[in-house]
Amino acid sequence: MKDPIKSLSKYLKVSVLKVEKEIADNIKDEEKLITSTSGHLINADGKKLRPLLTLLISRMLEYKGNAHIILAVCIEFIHNATLLHDDVIDTGKVRRGKISANEIWGNKISVLVGDYLLSKAFKLMVRNKSIKLLEILSQTSIILARGQIQDVGNSQNLNLSEKKYLSIINAKTAELFRISCFLPTVITNQNKSVQKAFNNFGYNFGMAFQLSDDILDYFGESKKMGKTIGKDFFEGKITYPIIHCYKNLDNNSKKLLIKLFLKTKRTKKDLSQVLKLMDKTDTYKKSLVFLSKYTNQARKDIIKFEGNKDTVYLKKLVDHLIIRDK
Amino acid sequence: MKDPIKSLSKYLKVSVLKVEKEIADNIKDEEKLITSTSGHLINADGKKLRPLLTLLISRMLEYKGNAHIILAVCIEFIHNATLLHDDVIDTGKVRRGKISANEIWGNKISVLVGDYLLSKAFKLMVRNKSIKLLEILSQTSIILARGQIQDVGNSQNLNLSEKKYLSIINAKTAELFRISCFLPTVITNQNKSVQKAFNNFGYNFGMAFQLSDDILDYFGESKKMGKTIGKDFFEGKITYPIIHCYKNLDNNSKKLLIKLFLKTKRTKKDLSQVLKLMDKTDTYKKSLVFLSKYTNQARKDIIKFEGNKDTVYLKKLVDHLIIRDK
Repeated sequence: MKDPIKSLSKYLKVSVLKVEKEIADNIKDEEKLITSTSGHLINADGKKLRPLLTLLISRMLEYKGNAHIILAVCIEFIHNATLLHDDVIDTGKVRRGKISANEIWGNKISVLVGDYLLSKAFKLMVRNKSIKLLEILSQTSIILARGQIQDVGNSQNLNLSEKKYLSIINAKTAELFRISCFLPTVITNQNKSVQKAFNNFGYNFGMAFQLSDDILDYFGESKKMGKTIGKDFFEGKITYPIIHCYKNLDNNSKKLLIKLFLKTKRTKKDLSQVLKLMDKTDTYKKSLVFLSKYTNQARKDIIKFEGNKDTVYLKKLVDHLIIRDK
Repeated sequence: MKDPIKSLSKYLKVSVLKVEKEIADNIKDEEKLITSTSGHLINADGKKLRPLLTLLISRMLEYKGNAHIILAVCIEFIHNATLLHDDVIDTGKVRRGKISANEIWGNKISVLVGDYLLSKAFKLMVRNKSIKLLEILSQTSIILARGQIQDVGNSQNLNLSEKKYLSIINAKTAELFRISCFLPTVITNQNKSVQKAFNNFGYNFGMAFQLSDDILDYFGESKKMGKTIGKDFFEGKITYPIIHCYKNLDNNSKKLLIKLFLKTKRTKKDLSQVLKLMDKTDTYKKSLVFLSKYTNQARKDIIKFEGNKDTVYLKKLVDHLIIRDK
């Protein structure tokens, strides 16, 4: 199957080029270190999925101005700021198949260039002179930070409830997808029902996106993803597959899972053991079922826009969340 | 001599309490880790010098509203965000006499709580509904990040020119002081001449503040400052005393200074040697002379407000920059 993100990017080529130009203009700084660090990250064949959603939905809603371009850039800057700070945070090595920025320039520069991008996002938004948009964006930025903090704070916490996990991934991931889909309805002054539809679609899509990521981290294929299998396990992150597996194990196996998870250094052999336990609890299949609750809901959210020919792109993006590694 | 910052804080007690309440309200988060981390830093007997400048100048200009309280909080949040990220950056151990946040909670949390505070600052500013203020604040935030990046980028660069050093400390330090003094003139709609006076005062005060810090790092007394002498040297930071000393040494001594500075691990003995070289070049006295260019200019900037009884507080703050360690 063709990658629907690439098809969408092609379909929206004119706007995508505008977004890319605006990005390039805004990371061009008198300080070359800023230009190169930001550029390294933003150009590293990032798929720009969030901006694409903003552009597509603005098109669906027949938006005629240029605010959607700036919004898309802001969202991409905020996203990249969190990636840079996440590189510090997770000591992740491979980001989008390239060596991460902090491996090349060090933690210091990663943190500061993240700050630079975040500040640029606000500066850009100010250009729009819309208090309403600034309100949404600054609130989202707070929620993202809180979500990441809660994510770190619950590292190795095997007692993390499913409810709390869902609230964390909502904050750290779904929130930015939510506004990527919701903001176009603001700049086009839609009625409550349309606003709600895209708001909910963004939320459900974002939740599914993170769940899918968490599932692929245990059950995906390394090469295609440009990521290492088991990264979450090695970092002691608690994600849906672990929560599901732990809940459904007998007491003895529970103890084993705790032991494996609380080790100071977790090895590949430990990962194999965890995968065996997940096999026992049928975690892969059950996780896909859980994921499908969100993808189904996302599909329902946009059902009333079936008449719009662009809706098919949204549907394909949803489908891709489930099958992207198959 | 009494600490003029404490006297000023007492003088502005009513507003200071409002600022403190607003800070407390805004770091109270559903996620306790955020409240405790931010609180640790903000309450750690920080002197809140920047907010005090904003409050004092707003008073001098007879401002009657509440925007200055929110501005003061924003400025303190932005400042604290940079401190938190600076802790990551400089592996600084003692911040305001307490153990730094990242020693207790780790790099991860320091970075993210910094992001949280920065986002909160923007959210708060949005409340003021002033695009003009948001424009200034977001631009400052960009400049701060750039300044810190340039600071890190020039670590151990003994060829750093005085000019470039001044442009870096302008960005990383003076800029926030500048807007702390300038913003009150915006919310009170002052004429160009008053705006310029406080803008320039803030710039010169900020430059002097950083120069003073850099001088005390080599020539101050450790206990009073709650900082370790020679921290900049151990971190390989290029500051005014080093630039001055290097420039005025003969070639052989230059080579020695380079050798000491480029060592992977710099010891206390190395620091003594550097101090001996600085003695040779009369760096302490010459640095004070250089500093006084900025403090004198700052005094001149506010000369036309001599009639205002609050001006004495500003003057005392300037005097304190030179003698605070004597």
